[in-house]
Amino acid sequence: MRVLVLGGDGYLGWPMSLHLSQSGHIVGIVDNLWKRSILAEQGVNDLFSSKEIDQKLRLWKTLTGREIQFWKSDVCNYQELLEILREFAPEAIIHFAEQPSAPFSMKGYEEAAFTLQNNLLSTLSLAHAVDAYDRSIHIIKLGTMGEYGTPNIDIEEGFIDIQHNGRSDRLLFPRQGSSLYHTTKIQDTDLLYLYVRTWGLTVTDLMQGPVYGFLTDETETQDDLVTMFCYDEVFGTVLNRFLVQAVCNHPLTVFGKGGQTRGYLNIRDTIQCVSLALEKPPKPGDMRILNQFTEVFSVKALAEKVRSAALELGIRAEVVEVSNPRVEQEEHFYNVKNTGLLELGLEPHLLTSHLLVRMLHRVLERKKYINRDVIHPRTAWRGS
Amino acid sequence: MRVLVLGGDGYLGWPMSLHLSQSGHIVGIVDNLWKRSILAEQGVNDLFSSKEIDQKLRLWKTLTGREIQFWKSDVCNYQELLEILREFAPEAIIHFAEQPSAPFSMKGYEEAAFTLQNNLLSTLSLAHAVDAYDRSIHIIKLGTMGEYGTPNIDIEEGFIDIQHNGRSDRLLFPRQGSSLYHTTKIQDTDLLYLYVRTWGLTVTDLMQGPVYGFLTDETETQDDLVTMFCYDEVFGTVLNRFLVQAVCNHPLTVFGKGGQTRGYLNIRDTIQCVSLALEKPPKPGDMRILNQFTEVFSVKALAEKVRSAALELGIRAEVVEVSNPRVEQEEHFYNVKNTGLLELGLEPHLLTSHLLVRMLHRVLERKKYINRDVIHPRTAWRGS
Repeated sequence: MRVLVLGGDGYLGWPMSLHLSQSGHIVGIVDNLWKRSILAEQGVNDLFSSKEIDQKLRLWKTLTGREIQFWKSDVCNYQELLEILREFAPEAIIHFAEQPSAPFSMKGYEEAAFTLQNNLLSTLSLAHAVDAYDRSIHIIKLGTMGEYGTPNIDIEEGFIDIQHNGRSDRLLFPRQGSSLYHTTKIQDTDLLYLYVRTWGLTVTDLMQGPVYGFLTDETETQDDLVTMFCYDEVFGTVLNRFLVQAVCNHPLTVFGKGGQTRGYLNIRDTIQCVSLALEKPPKPGDMRILNQFTEVFSVKALAEKVRSAALELGIRAEVVEVSNPRVEQEEHFYNVKNTGLLELGLEPHLLTSHLLVRMLHRVLERKKYINRDVIHPRTAWRGS
Repeated sequence: MRVLVLGGDGYLGWPMSLHLSQSGHIVGIVDNLWKRSILAEQGVNDLFSSKEIDQKLRLWKTLTGREIQFWKSDVCNYQELLEILREFAPEAIIHFAEQPSAPFSMKGYEEAAFTLQNNLLSTLSLAHAVDAYDRSIHIIKLGTMGEYGTPNIDIEEGFIDIQHNGRSDRLLFPRQGSSLYHTTKIQDTDLLYLYVRTWGLTVTDLMQGPVYGFLTDETETQDDLVTMFCYDEVFGTVLNRFLVQAVCNHPLTVFGKGGQTRGYLNIRDTIQCVSLALEKPPKPGDMRILNQFTEVFSVKALAEKVRSAALELGIRAEVVEVSNPRVEQEEHFYNVKNTGLLELGLEPHLLTSHLLVRMLHRVLERKKYINRDVIHPRTAWRGS
């Protein structure tokens, strides 16, 4: 299949692109390299100093003979995106090209406005370009479990059957994000849902939990193909931060009581889930929403797991509660359905002690490159 | 009270500003005059050729001795808005500064992107400026009943108590817009709800049905104070279009079967509802959502009412079904709660035959200025 990956230089987009290429798909990447420039601007390094995309693509071709076409372009630029669709003729498009950090979106007005514009205009531009070029293209967008927030009822997959005053309807599950970033993800779901209903676009929206890890089949044995791995307070996801904290003898910092409970998944399973969505598309004209995670943990439990695994390597990590920079419930009900992807064939890679030790080993090899100053939370939700 | 009206030169913002000024409030207006420039660009006149804002403000001062301060500024410009807040020191802000047309938002990518950016960045900028300047300011935003769409269950006011698998929660009512414009209104509600929960902002979100009319206490006897009244396919609301169609011997064009049912209100009641929201604010830190309409009609019933009223003036108007340019249900369940504003004291001005005849009279006086070419729907939802 001809698959275009938007945001294909990023943490998830890059290993996804390699996996699709390895599986025999014809892959194209569009990326404006914003993530690299903002990391540079903020003086933050990714742990493995991941190589520039041109270099990685050359290496990939040398190793496998497979070519991946790359456009340095902003997905928010509708005319450029439409040109790329005409040139590449994709059958499916995977949309990773969003600003993915909740803390970044809560820093101040400029960051909020950037997040809002980038995440919504990229999705709007994509919907319009697909409409103009070929409405049958399957759009796979990465959403977030954070769209649902932490309601006091079971969370379904995207839609909920509501009984009310003797009547019933199946409607979008009510959502409430806990940051501007999460709100933009609610909003991009709403945008695509509009165009599914109005133009008959075909969409899979994957409500993903926090992803951890960096080891994938295609990158594990080739250091120069490794993905961008952030551990800073802005772009690092929680388990990745804990791994780095353990290695550099920083306490594992749990926000508040640490009872915040979420569904997590291994980066390998992100790749597996998106591949399943691609190979088993919804019916044409459908909006399919799937919850993408494999295991549910509280933040405190996650920290304890890392602490135990670190001990096996002789590292004594301490788990400490720090003042919560976010505005969120620290203890709450959380019961989430995730059978959709399992029914499509997902075989989860779980968070075993063995996996944690392997990841800690690899992080240890990069210990001297860790910048301890960027880990501790500095971005507060309550702002001014 | 010191009240800032964003979008105070528009169809509703202008008579609202005059009414507040007349009621003894200190009023400021911010407007970028976009509506005037887009009408000029599209060669569309408003029926009463409403005067430029500077001229209207001078006349208002001459007539009443009351001064209304005006800033020509784009609300999306955060720094400028923050400066205006510092200068004017409002206690409440009424936000009308959005692109209000569904057809405009469905024309093409440029119009969609403009609508998305304008409606969301204006709301984001407002929330951030209020946070930076004074979190206790009461924000009143105009939403639309179109956020709810036409679900098969009773529509509540903003929130719904959901019972699900033996548990319950009170959540935002699930919403589904039928155009990009309506979707941006869902999204601006979500933005404000985020900042209410996170920063403790105080918000009233008024889910308004289509407004009709142009006669208000402050403008009725002063032709030079009349508001911008659009009857074109892009900016004219349905009843206003019917009035003009009847007068210029154009058939009253009902889209499809005409069973589309909505809650409508008189422009006087928009002013009354916003005033009530202003005088009776929610508790500090609350998000209050009220459904703002007084009567429910199908489009067909509305057309019949205009036909009957026109007959009293000797005008024989024909009601015709035209191919529906929109993607929407033409027959559907619709049962909507609107007790919140009635409980605050709303006394509705209903759509009587007498009122229709009065409005038709005033429209007749402008018959020679009507441009018949701009009435018929040309903007199709299915686009390309």
